[in-house]
Amino acid sequence: MKATVYHGVHDVRLENVADPSILAPHDAIVRVTRAAICGSDLWFYRGITKPEPGSRTGHEFVGIIEDVGSDVRSVRPGDAVIAPFAASDGTCEFCHAGLQTSCVNGSFFSGEKNGGQAEFVRVPYADGTLVKMPEAIAADESKHNASVALCDVMGTGHHGVVSAQTTAGSTVVIVGDGAVGLCAVLSAAKEVRADRIIAVGHNPKRLDVAKRFGATHIFNSHDERVQDEILELTSGGSPHVVEAVGNQESLDLAVRVARPGGTVSFVGVPHGVKSPPMARIFDENLSLRGALAPARAYLPQLIASLEAGRIDPSPVLDWAIPLGSVADGYAAMDDRSALKVLLTVS
Amino acid sequence: MKATVYHGVHDVRLENVADPSILAPHDAIVRVTRAAICGSDLWFYRGITKPEPGSRTGHEFVGIIEDVGSDVRSVRPGDAVIAPFAASDGTCEFCHAGLQTSCVNGSFFSGEKNGGQAEFVRVPYADGTLVKMPEAIAADESKHNASVALCDVMGTGHHGVVSAQTTAGSTVVIVGDGAVGLCAVLSAAKEVRADRIIAVGHNPKRLDVAKRFGATHIFNSHDERVQDEILELTSGGSPHVVEAVGNQESLDLAVRVARPGGTVSFVGVPHGVKSPPMARIFDENLSLRGALAPARAYLPQLIASLEAGRIDPSPVLDWAIPLGSVADGYAAMDDRSALKVLLTVS
Repeated sequence: MKATVYHGVHDVRLENVADPSILAPHDAIVRVTRAAICGSDLWFYRGITKPEPGSRTGHEFVGIIEDVGSDVRSVRPGDAVIAPFAASDGTCEFCHAGLQTSCVNGSFFSGEKNGGQAEFVRVPYADGTLVKMPEAIAADESKHNASVALCDVMGTGHHGVVSAQTTAGSTVVIVGDGAVGLCAVLSAAKEVRADRIIAVGHNPKRLDVAKRFGATHIFNSHDERVQDEILELTSGGSPHVVEAVGNQESLDLAVRVARPGGTVSFVGVPHGVKSPPMARIFDENLSLRGALAPARAYLPQLIASLEAGRIDPSPVLDWAIPLGSVADGYAAMDDRSALKVLLTVS
Repeated sequence: MKATVYHGVHDVRLENVADPSILAPHDAIVRVTRAAICGSDLWFYRGITKPEPGSRTGHEFVGIIEDVGSDVRSVRPGDAVIAPFAASDGTCEFCHAGLQTSCVNGSFFSGEKNGGQAEFVRVPYADGTLVKMPEAIAADESKHNASVALCDVMGTGHHGVVSAQTTAGSTVVIVGDGAVGLCAVLSAAKEVRADRIIAVGHNPKRLDVAKRFGATHIFNSHDERVQDEILELTSGGSPHVVEAVGNQESLDLAVRVARPGGTVSFVGVPHGVKSPPMARIFDENLSLRGALAPARAYLPQLIASLEAGRIDPSPVLDWAIPLGSVADGYAAMDDRSALKVLLTVS
């Protein structure tokens, strides 16, 4: 089969590799129909993290079950499925608590021999990991395309909003206008139904998507008065803040616009962060919540919302290309000409 | 009157100063009967923070109302009262939410002209700040002495346990065997009724107090296997952790012994902390909660517990001296020969 392989900085290639096969009775093999490139894939593409050359890439994919191991009960060949970005057994304490990313048997897609930007993927613990895609999504080209956003960015944005303890009718600030920040806006508007949704970013095109997704207020993160303006708008800070960038500047802003007693979630892997502002977190009794999204936990809810048309995250997938052009997709996300790339595979 | 005045590193002196007077109609003047020296007073005593020379010291005191301003309704001259370490108006959004340390009109005792280690203290917003001391405490020498622990350390320890979301029957790790850490143990045992209370420290005498207060397990923080041992005891971490030291090492340990999805509160002003371990907070969906205690919020509950004999924090006040010896008290806490000094004033 063809799979995307990491070779070094700015160097990913689609290559012929061995087809995956069932290795454990709980495995399934998925024939990928749609995959995507994630903002977090840029960390290794840019050399900030350093996986082994030869590693497979990609952790967002949907597709059709090709084969299952003898223990698999919930899916069978021919079923359309959506995978979260991490596999989980579905039976441990953490899976039961909806924290599948801490599953005792969990693993992440991408890595040595198994990545989502490929024609086939081996999915461990298929019963715990995969969720069936309703026919109404599988048969609708637009929804089928959009469904790949549920593997990571939509679940991550939603988890940020939930982790910030955002409630219906409340105010939430979302720092970051990447795919995850925009999905957080969509979640706040359509899933959690916050009243004031304050989006902070600096890319006009992306902030337009934030407006379409339901942001009620837009602020430019490069405006040096942004912090004061948000504090003024919220009369002293927002009880709920989602940090969806992952650098020091955005974490500082997120903590400084939080209301005393409020909650700040951070949904990006922190890179180059020296420290959150601990004195303010202490003085104002803030909660800082790390929020690697248990995307699996939210799939049933988000699939139902996509099926019903309540949410449509497809605007974040602004460039669709065939898997064969995956290297162009990385380059386009790297130079920001694409927000997020959809890969059509089969 | 006599008041303690900061002059520089290792230099506090009891001096004659002007008596305080009512400055605003919401003020009260308290004649101090008992005060205390706080572990946090050592920050300026050791030169780690640098207040203005001439500043008054002390934020823990109980006493008798001497005079009140024209707006004060809840206390009158002659009433015995307990003060939390911060004044609060009792009427703002944050006071109503039980977050009096973020009161919009709030202020802290100690500072330019008003400190608790003195014969008299001016208390702003007396109605919002002070709580009456029941006769059963005022008339009982031992409980009267113990009541000064409620101004800060007992409220702070309790707030740490509450902020870590500790529930009845649960497991909590408390890192630190200073007065606050020990009071957290007492709160976990008697107020919150946790089942497993794991105390971490390195002073055998203080850890003995932890045992008396209800710790079920004791670990030596200087033992390099302490983290592994706590993880083993808790089968992978505690859902609730209180960090009551305020340095990098203890914050690291607190975060590393937290269970995935768990909550770590930190109740000490962070000093010399580079950063909490952000990657683990992210990966395991931990909540890190800053926890400057709104001691005022807990006074009614903790006063009732002290009155009923449910809690007795007096073992943390291990050296009682007259106010005239306050400088000796600082020296004894600085060299750790005293855990916490009680000052008898009048």
